[in-house]
Amino acid sequence: MLPELNDLNTFRKALKDAPGPDDAAAQEAVERNGQLTKPPGALGRLEDIAIWYAGWRGQSRPQINSPQVVVFAGNHGVTAQGVSAFPPEVTVQMVANFEHGGAAINQLAKSAGATMTVHALDLDRPTTDFTKAPAMSEDELLVALRTGWMAVDPEADLLVVGEMGIGNTTPAAAIACALFGGDASEWTGRGTGVDDAGLENKTRVVTEGVVLHAGCGDGLDILRCLGGREIAAMAGAIAAARVLRIPVILDGFICTSAAACLDQLAPGALDHTVAGHQSAESAHAAMLAKLGKDPLLTLGLRLGEGSGAALAINILKSAIACHSGMATFAEAGVSDG
Amino acid sequence: MLPELNDLNTFRKALKDAPGPDDAAAQEAVERNGQLTKPPGALGRLEDIAIWYAGWRGQSRPQINSPQVVVFAGNHGVTAQGVSAFPPEVTVQMVANFEHGGAAINQLAKSAGATMTVHALDLDRPTTDFTKAPAMSEDELLVALRTGWMAVDPEADLLVVGEMGIGNTTPAAAIACALFGGDASEWTGRGTGVDDAGLENKTRVVTEGVVLHAGCGDGLDILRCLGGREIAAMAGAIAAARVLRIPVILDGFICTSAAACLDQLAPGALDHTVAGHQSAESAHAAMLAKLGKDPLLTLGLRLGEGSGAALAINILKSAIACHSGMATFAEAGVSDG
Repeated sequence: MLPELNDLNTFRKALKDAPGPDDAAAQEAVERNGQLTKPPGALGRLEDIAIWYAGWRGQSRPQINSPQVVVFAGNHGVTAQGVSAFPPEVTVQMVANFEHGGAAINQLAKSAGATMTVHALDLDRPTTDFTKAPAMSEDELLVALRTGWMAVDPEADLLVVGEMGIGNTTPAAAIACALFGGDASEWTGRGTGVDDAGLENKTRVVTEGVVLHAGCGDGLDILRCLGGREIAAMAGAIAAARVLRIPVILDGFICTSAAACLDQLAPGALDHTVAGHQSAESAHAAMLAKLGKDPLLTLGLRLGEGSGAALAINILKSAIACHSGMATFAEAGVSDG
Repeated sequence: MLPELNDLNTFRKALKDAPGPDDAAAQEAVERNGQLTKPPGALGRLEDIAIWYAGWRGQSRPQINSPQVVVFAGNHGVTAQGVSAFPPEVTVQMVANFEHGGAAINQLAKSAGATMTVHALDLDRPTTDFTKAPAMSEDELLVALRTGWMAVDPEADLLVVGEMGIGNTTPAAAIACALFGGDASEWTGRGTGVDDAGLENKTRVVTEGVVLHAGCGDGLDILRCLGGREIAAMAGAIAAARVLRIPVILDGFICTSAAACLDQLAPGALDHTVAGHQSAESAHAAMLAKLGKDPLLTLGLRLGEGSGAALAINILKSAIACHSGMATFAEAGVSDG
């Protein structure tokens, strides 16, 4: 069902041609929702989620049995500019931590009953420092997109994509600035915790990158010039899920920057996604607002790894459990007002 | 460990004398939290929850294995004043729905891995219409409190209390108005969905009740004069959990009105509670603000039954899973910045 990704234009075309939700299933879900034993609208956003999910799965009474969490890791040449509070070797150390089950995302995936896999992308070969040249060549971008594209399990019924990459709030801010405009300072935050001087330096780096690559073309070209391998892999996975009609929960600032590149490529490219959690990283709220996404959770996380999205899996499961498991007024013999 | 509730003063005294959290366990949890493989503070409120929970359970690395959901149902004489969009017979119908597993709370409890029990309190004998006389006698209040008090499983490690009672946003609004002052209109909302005329009538009813019972004494007396059996039972259960050091997730408007009565009785009476969800019922946000509780979720629910709190169980489980399951920097061989 997924076309092979032999070049970037295949990616662009697959995203533009991807099927929409099943309107008949969504309509049946709307009707079922109106008959459930509760006052109209009393389950709030859980009702909207259930109807949206039913449409994308093509089932009026769906289930969530196989959520998948995929974490991508990449390294960034731009760390040479001193943009992170942590040294770049932490990326590979954290990949080992993911593999041994010791990170936050391991616990959160387990709590959500999700499978979890980790893909380390050429960690010993960081992207080019984007203040000097494009972060990736077209071939490098294609390989990274394909890694994400192939990482999605076609049997999954819900997808979370996460990332690890020391320094990667810097490319994410640069992507947002290139896509949405405004001053670099509006999009640049403290990441894992840089101080005031660090924030000033990081803002300078973002500005330089955006100015140098102002001639970039579409969202995919911006992703190539300013992004990173794990960001491209997330974009590839979110796009594959769109083609496969697998609903996606977006994570925080980095994940949303990947998604924003897709949104630029094709209208409706993110219709199969919900925002799981609004990060404490300052510009995430603005990025979600640009995409028209209202986050399900706002609990002050700013970790990445897919953590905020994984935390929201159980919200979606609960919404679907209510929708598909509740009795109707007629079944329960309850007066409907 | 729970004293027998032979009179109302035993209840007052048990609440005042209840033990606080284990500060040493909380301090150990703070230290552990600082060593986990994540930037400081990057799990946001999940970190606060884990430390708070550790203190109440007296374990620096706790688990949540046995969450309990208890739903109480009661009927209200004040429904004779036309305060609800649904007829009072729906209370008993919904109790049957709970018992057969068809309601929203059944699905949410199951999604959270929680046990669930239902207690119907004298449904064929509604409380007195509080615009005429006190809703309950002292004996009736004691019986209802005791039902909640005894309903808590001492082996539970997390408690959610919910309710069903057609008309019960009216007593909840009256309790809030009596406890916190202000105009009845500030505390009165649309409940399951009354129209503008219904809202005006409901506000009049709340005003009449609060004026008639202006001479009430403490929170327990306000609960007796303006409350209802299921509201008193929730107060009894929340108090028992305080004595047993079982953390509680508060639900919506009705549950919080029960909790607010306890807060009036003893300082710190609600220190073992978190607010699970901010209801769409308009005055719930104001009530939580009065109690200094910041809700974990805001997803537009306004159902009662314990639904918003049950939805938050998995948030607490996830927080504890991260805290107790993650590797430390030393264990994982990760550089800590």
